[in-house]
Amino acid sequence: RFGKKQIKSTYLISETDFTACHNQSYVNQYDLLKGLKKGGTFLFNCQWKAEELEGKLPAGMKKYLAENNIEFYIIDATDIAQEIGLGNRINMIMQAAFFKLSKVIPLDDAVKYIKDAIEKTYGKKGEKIVNMNYEAVDRGIDALEKVKIPDSWKDAVETADVVEAQEPDYIKNILRVVNRQEGDTIPVSAFVGAEDGTFPQGTAAYEKRGIAVNVPEWQSDNCIQCNQCSYVCPHAAIRPILLDKDEAGGAPQDFGTIQAKGKGMDGFKYRIQISTLDCTGCGNCAEVCPAKEKALVMKPLSSQEKEIKNWKFAESVSVKDNIMSDDTVKGSQFKKPLFEFSGACAGCGETPYAKLITQLYGERMIIANATGCSSIWGGSAPSAPYTTNSKGQGPAWANSLFEDNAEYGFGIASGVKQIRNKIEDYFKGLSEMNIDGSIKEAIIEWISSREDAQASREASEKLLELFKSSFKDSKADAIRNKVLELKDYLVKKSVWVFGGDGWAYDIGYGGLDHVLASGEDINVMVYDTEVYSNTGGQASKSTPMGAVAKFAASGKKTKKKDLGLMAMTYGYVYVAQIAMGASQRQTLKAIREAESYKGPSIIIAYSPCINHGIKIGMGKAQLRQKQAVESGYWHLYRYNPVLKDDGSNPFILDSKEPKESFRDFLMGEVRYASLTKTFPEIAEELFSKAAEDAKEKYEKYKAMAQQ
Amino acid sequence: RFGKKQIKSTYLISETDFTACHNQSYVNQYDLLKGLKKGGTFLFNCQWKAEELEGKLPAGMKKYLAENNIEFYIIDATDIAQEIGLGNRINMIMQAAFFKLSKVIPLDDAVKYIKDAIEKTYGKKGEKIVNMNYEAVDRGIDALEKVKIPDSWKDAVETADVVEAQEPDYIKNILRVVNRQEGDTIPVSAFVGAEDGTFPQGTAAYEKRGIAVNVPEWQSDNCIQCNQCSYVCPHAAIRPILLDKDEAGGAPQDFGTIQAKGKGMDGFKYRIQISTLDCTGCGNCAEVCPAKEKALVMKPLSSQEKEIKNWKFAESVSVKDNIMSDDTVKGSQFKKPLFEFSGACAGCGETPYAKLITQLYGERMIIANATGCSSIWGGSAPSAPYTTNSKGQGPAWANSLFEDNAEYGFGIASGVKQIRNKIEDYFKGLSEMNIDGSIKEAIIEWISSREDAQASREASEKLLELFKSSFKDSKADAIRNKVLELKDYLVKKSVWVFGGDGWAYDIGYGGLDHVLASGEDINVMVYDTEVYSNTGGQASKSTPMGAVAKFAASGKKTKKKDLGLMAMTYGYVYVAQIAMGASQRQTLKAIREAESYKGPSIIIAYSPCINHGIKIGMGKAQLRQKQAVESGYWHLYRYNPVLKDDGSNPFILDSKEPKESFRDFLMGEVRYASLTKTFPEIAEELFSKAAEDAKEKYEKYKAMAQQ
Ligand SMILES: Cc1ncc(C[n+]2csc(CCOP(=O)(O)OP(=O)(O)O)c2C)c(N)n1
Ligand SMILES: Cc1ncc(C[n+]2csc(CCOP(=O)(O)OP(=O)(O)O)c2C)c(N)n1
Ligand code: SF4
Ligand code: SF4
Ligand code: SF4
Ligand code: SF4
Ligand code: SF4
Ligand code: SF4
Repeated sequence: RFGKKQIKSTYLISETDFTACHNQSYVNQYDLLKGLKKGGTFLFNCQWKAEELEGKLPAGMKKYLAENNIEFYIIDATDIAQEIGLGNRINMIMQAAFFKLSKVIPLDDAVKYIKDAIEKTYGKKGEKIVNMNYEAVDRGIDALEKVKIPDSWKDAVETADVVEAQEPDYIKNILRVVNRQEGDTIPVSAFVGAEDGTFPQGTAAYEKRGIAVNVPEWQSDNCIQCNQCSYVCPHAAIRPILLDKDEAGGAPQDFGTIQAKGKGMDGFKYRIQISTLDCTGCGNCAEVCPAKEKALVMKPLSSQEKEIKNWKFAESVSVKDNIMSDDTVKGSQFKKPLFEFSGACAGCGETPYAKLITQLYGERMIIANATGCSSIWGGSAPSAPYTTNSKGQGPAWANSLFEDNAEYGFGIASGVKQIRNKIEDYFKGLSEMNIDGSIKEAIIEWISSREDAQASREASEKLLELFKSSFKDSKADAIRNKVLELKDYLVKKSVWVFGGDGWAYDIGYGGLDHVLASGEDINVMVYDTEVYSNTGGQASKSTPMGAVAKFAASGKKTKKKDLGLMAMTYGYVYVAQIAMGASQRQTLKAIREAESYKGPSIIIAYSPCINHGIKIGMGKAQLRQKQAVESGYWHLYRYNPVLKDDGSNPFILDSKEPKESFRDFLMGEVRYASLTKTFPEIAEELFSKAAEDAKEKYEKYKAMAQQ
Repeated sequence: RFGKKQIKSTYLISETDFTACHNQSYVNQYDLLKGLKKGGTFLFNCQWKAEELEGKLPAGMKKYLAENNIEFYIIDATDIAQEIGLGNRINMIMQAAFFKLSKVIPLDDAVKYIKDAIEKTYGKKGEKIVNMNYEAVDRGIDALEKVKIPDSWKDAVETADVVEAQEPDYIKNILRVVNRQEGDTIPVSAFVGAEDGTFPQGTAAYEKRGIAVNVPEWQSDNCIQCNQCSYVCPHAAIRPILLDKDEAGGAPQDFGTIQAKGKGMDGFKYRIQISTLDCTGCGNCAEVCPAKEKALVMKPLSSQEKEIKNWKFAESVSVKDNIMSDDTVKGSQFKKPLFEFSGACAGCGETPYAKLITQLYGERMIIANATGCSSIWGGSAPSAPYTTNSKGQGPAWANSLFEDNAEYGFGIASGVKQIRNKIEDYFKGLSEMNIDGSIKEAIIEWISSREDAQASREASEKLLELFKSSFKDSKADAIRNKVLELKDYLVKKSVWVFGGDGWAYDIGYGGLDHVLASGEDINVMVYDTEVYSNTGGQASKSTPMGAVAKFAASGKKTKKKDLGLMAMTYGYVYVAQIAMGASQRQTLKAIREAESYKGPSIIIAYSPCINHGIKIGMGKAQLRQKQAVESGYWHLYRYNPVLKDDGSNPFILDSKEPKESFRDFLMGEVRYASLTKTFPEIAEELFSKAAEDAKEKYEKYKAMAQQ
C-alpha cells in the first residue's frame, strides 16, 4: 500500500490496483486475480510467449482479464536472471517492473532509490554483484511486454480434462484449501477424527508444485546405473525404476528404458524417472552424475511435460527392493523413500540424509523431531512428506519442542521397550499354557530375536500367521488378542531423534547428553548447518570460528564445539561425522552402523544450507561437501564401541589428509568471504586461526585413529 | 500422636504428654517445655549428672518442672552410642527410652517391633550393625535415670550473667526468633529495607550452636604450625592466630601461645584457637594433624569451656595476612575465612573448598550458587555463613535456581564487565579534560591493569586517593562522582559459579557447557558428591558404576560421566580435578590457576558426604579423599590452556600410579558395600567392571599427560 502519509494499520487488502505473480505454476493453484480492480494492472512472470498464453492460462483468468479491462503485462524474469548471472533470484527485476507499471513514484526517482539501496546492501559483496543488480533493474524495466487481450477471452470455458480429480477427502477439503490460502474458510468439523493432532501421511505427493525452472532430463545412453542421482536428491524427485517384462510391456511410448545391469538384474529394464513437478530444479543430481558424458542434463520444465505421465506410470510399477541389498549406495536406492517432496529449499543439504534413513528403516521407524528446519520440511501442515510403503508402513513422526527433543525420543524409546516387554510377558505366559508346540517354538524364536531387526521381522511374520485363527484354550486366546492389539511392536523399532545443530549443540544439548549417557538404544541424527537455519542464521556453538552469522556479525570468535568428541568420552556411544557429498559410502556405512548398534548413537551430518551463501549455488551443495572434506574443513570419522570388544581401536578416521586449500574453501561462501570486506583485519586473524585449529583437529583425530 | 484409631489429620500439637530433648545445648535456645501438660513426662539426653542439673538448667525450666509435677528423666545417650560403636547416632536409644516412658504400647511389644524393624532395615548391612542397634534398644531402656525435682526449683531465678546480649537488631529480632522456631510471630515490618531479599552477612557467627560432643584441644607442645587443621575444617572453627607483642600481652590467662616459626615471624606468637561452640566435633582437624604426637586431641565439649572466652579474644586480634603469601597451604590459613560456621553436616567434604576460596578471593568475589547443599550451607535463612573482613568486604552471594546457575553467573560476569567498561569510558573521557597529570597517570595505570587482581587493587587505591577531593573542572567533577558511585567495581572481581554434581553434570549441564564455551572469564566450582546430596542421594551422571543411590537401587549401571574431559575438548577452558584430602597443595594450586586464568575455568572437587556411608565415619572424610586417589578411584589433574602458549602440554596428571586396592576403597562405603548384600552377583560384575574402567581412565590420562 502506498500513500502520501505513513500507513500504520496492518490489515490485509482485499482490493488491489496492482497484482503480480512471480511464479507461473501458480496460475493453476491460486485464484490470482481475486480482488484486482477494474482497469487494474496484472504483472505475470512467465516463460511463455504472449501467443502461448491462450493455451496456458486457465479459462477463469482469461475471462477476468477480458471482462475487467486489466492492463496485462508479462516478463520472463527467470530467463533474464539466469542470463545476468543472478541464478534464480528474480526479485530485483520484478521490483523494477513494479515501479515502472505502478507509477507510485516517478520512475527515475524509483530507479535512483533502488540503485542506492543496491549499493548499500551489496556494496560489501563487491562490484560484480552490484553491477548484476543494476542490470536487473534496467532489464526489469525494458523487458516488460504488454499483452493484447483478445475479446474472445470473455467467452473462455474450462476444457474437459480439468475435471475435479479423484482425490482423498483430506486433500480436497483441507490440503488444497489451505494451499490456496483459504484455510480460514475450513470449518472445525473438517478435523473430526484428528483431534489428537495427527495428520495423514504422504500428502506432499499431491502438491506437485512445479516450481523448478529447469529439471533434469535423463540421457539413457550415457547412464551407468549408479543411482547416485537418486541418492543425493533432496526431494526424492528422481528415482531408478526397475521393470519386469510385463511392466515394461505396459509402459507408455515415451517411457524409454535400458537393460538393467548387475547381478540378478537379467530380466529387468532400468530407467531413471524424474517427477518434474516435485523437482525443485536444484541440479545436484546432474552435478553428481558420474557418467563420462552426463546422463542428466538440465532442461526447461516446460520442455518435459511428457514426464508427468511417465512419473504416474513409474509410481504404478512395483518396488523391487529385494534384488540388491541396501548395503551399497546403488542398492539403497531401489528402496522406496518414505520421505518425499518436502518443502525444503532447493538443494538443501539436510533432506538427502533423512530420505536415505527412511529408505533403510522407514517401515519400522519412529522419529522425534526437534523444532528447526527438519520440523518444517518434515511436517509443515497441511502437507506431510513422510509417507508409507505399499503395505501402509512408514515412519511415525512427531515434534514436541526445540529444547526437549532428545528426552522426547528417549520417552518414545522407553515406551516401545515397555510395550515389547509386555509382549514378551504375554508370550511367556502363553508358553505355560495349553497351546500348539509350533506356537511355542515361534515364541522362543521371537524372544531370542526381538532386538534384531531382520530376525524379529521373520519371527513376527511366523507368529502372526500362527495367530490368525483363534486358540482353543480361551485364556490363551484372550492373550492372543492382546498380542494382536500390539502387533505393530513385534518387529524391532528403529527410534530416531532428528534435529539441527542449534538443538543438538545448544538448546537441547543438556537433554541430548543425558540421553546419550543413558545407554538406551536410540539413534540421533544431527543436521549440522552450523547455524540456526530455520530462524534465519543465528550463530550456534556449531558455528565455526570466523563465520559471519546473526549474533556474530564480525565473525564468530570461538571455535566450533566438538560435539562428537564430547560424546566419545562416554566410550559406549556410537559417534560418526558424515558428509554425503564427500563420501556416499561412508555416509551409508555410518548410518547402518549407528542403527544396528545396541546403544545410543549420534551422527553429525554436514549440511550445506542457503544460509551459507554458497557462491557456486545450492545446485553444488553436494560438491561443497566434498570440498569441505578435501580442504580439512570437515572431518569424516566413525567411533564404534563394538570394535573394542576384540581389542580394536574404536575410532576410524575416514577423511584423508587434506589436500585442498582451507582458505579457498572459506572464500567460496558468503558467510566467510563477506568478513574480508566488513572487517578485513579480524577476518585475516580469524581465518588463519581457524585454519590452524582445523589442522590441529585433524592431527588429533589422526593420533586417535593410530592409537 | 497415638490413638486406637488411625490419626489422619496433620496439625501440629500444642499440648503434649511427653516431651524429649535430644541435644543438651537446646536448653538455652528453645522454650523446650512449652505445652507439656501438668504431670507430663520430660526426657532429656545430656552428659550432665543429675546433681549438675541445678547449675546447668535455666531458671525458667526448673520452675516449670517443679510447678507442673513433671516426671523428669535423663539419659546419656551420647555416651552410650559412642560406647556401642554407633558414633553420634543416638536415635535408636532415645526411641527405646520413649517407648519405655510413654507406655503407648506394652514395652515388650515395643521392643519386639523395634527389633524386627532393625532386622529389616539393617539386615543387609550385616550382623554387626544389627547387634549394635539391638544393644542400643536395651541400653536405652536400662540407662534411664529419674531426676528428683527439688522443691526449691519453684523459686529459681535467672542469675545475673544472662542479661540480654548487646546484639544487632537483625540477630535479636529475626535470627534468634526464627531459630527458636517462633518465626511465625515476626511481623512483616521487621523486614523493611530488605524487600529485595538481601540478608545481612556474617550472622551464622551469632548462632554458636554448641552441637559437638567432642571438640579438639590444642596441644601446643606438639604443634608444628602447619595450619592443616585450619585448612580442612569444614566449619572454619579452628584457626591459627598470630599475636604481636602488644596483643600477646593483653591475652587472657588460658590463651597459651608458642613462638611463631618461619620467615618474618620473629616478633609473633602463634596459637591454634578453636571456636568450640561452632565446631561440630567432626574430628577431621585432629585426623589430618601431621604432628608426630597429635597436636589436637578430641575432648568433651564440656571440658573446654574456657575456649569460649579465648575465641572471643582471638576474634579481637588483628588478622595478619601480609606476612606469608597465600600461595602455600600454611600461608593461605592466615587469611580470614569469609565463609564460616555454616550448617553443613559435620565433616562435610564440600565446605572446606568453599572456605579456602573465600580466604583467597572473598573480598572481591561474587558467587552464583546452584540449588543444592551448597545453597543450603551457603545461605539458609535466617543465618548467613558468608561474612566480611575488617574493611566490610566479603563475597556477594546469590542463588537463582537449580538449573540456570551457570547462566546466572554468566549474567553477573557480563554485568560486571559492562560496568567496568563504563568506568573505563569515564576514565577515557576524563583523560581528555583539564585534570591533574597525576590523575591521568593513575588512569592509564588502571586501564592497563584492570584485569589483574593485585595491580588493579593498587591502581584503584591510588585513584581513590586522588578522587577524594573534588576536581576544579565541574564537568570532570561530575564524572568523578559517577566513578565513585561505581567504586566497588574498580578492583577486578572474581566471579564464581558454585554447585553440586546434580547441577553440573545433569540439570544445569546444558547451560554450564554454554558458559564454558563462551570464553568468558568465569570460575566454576563443582562440589562432586557423586549424588544429589541435598535431596537425599539420587543418582546423577556423576554417580560411578556400581554405587547404590536413589533411582539406582541395584547399583548404577553406567559409568561416571567425565565432565572434565568433555570441558577439555574446547581447548580454551581451564579444567582441574582436585581432592583436598589427597593433596592440599594441588587443591590450592588448581584454585589459584583457575582463578587467574583469563577465560572459563572449571574445578571438579571430590567431596565426601554423609550419603556415601563412610564406614570409618565423616571424621575421616579427608582421609577418604586420600584413599580415593591412592586406589585410583579419583584422579587429580590440571588442564591449563596457558601452557600451550609456549608449546607445552596443557594437561598435567597430578595423581600417582594407584597403589592401593580399588575394591577395598569401595568396601569402605555403604553405598558400595551394601550391594554385595542386596545384589551379590550384580555387585561383583559392576565392581570389577568399575575397576577396569578406572584403570582404563588412568591410562588414558597418563597418555594425555605424556603427549
Ligand atoms: C526454546 C525455543 N527457542 C527458540 C525457538 C525458535 N526456533 C525454532 S527453530 C530454531 C532454530 C533451529 O536451529 P537448528 O536447531 O540449528 O536447526 P536448523 O533450522 O538449522 O535445521 C529456533 C531458534 C523455539 N522454537 N524454542
Ligand atoms: C529444576 C529442579 N529440580 C529439582 C529441584 C530439587 N533439588 C534441589 S537441590 C537438588 C539436588 C542437588 O544435587 P547436587 O547438584 O548434586 O548438589 P548437592 O546437594 O549434592 O551438593 C534437587 C534435586 C530443584 N530445586 N529444581
Ligand atoms: S534437480 Fe534437484 S530436486 Fe530435481 S531431481 Fe535433481 S536433485 Fe532432485
Ligand atoms: S547419476 Fe547419472 S549415471 Fe548414475 S544413475 Fe543417475 S543418471 Fe545414471
Ligand atoms: S534453510 Fe537451509 S537447512 Fe533449512 S531447508 Fe533451507 S537449505 Fe535446508
Ligand atoms: S572437629 Fe571438625 S568442625 Fe571441629 S574444629 Fe575440627 S575440623 Fe573443625
Ligand atoms: S594440624 Fe596439628 S600441627 Fe598442624 S597447625 Fe594444626 S595442630 Fe598444629
Ligand atoms: S549432605 Fe553431604 S554435601 Fe550436603 S552438607 Fe551433608 S555432608 Fe555436605
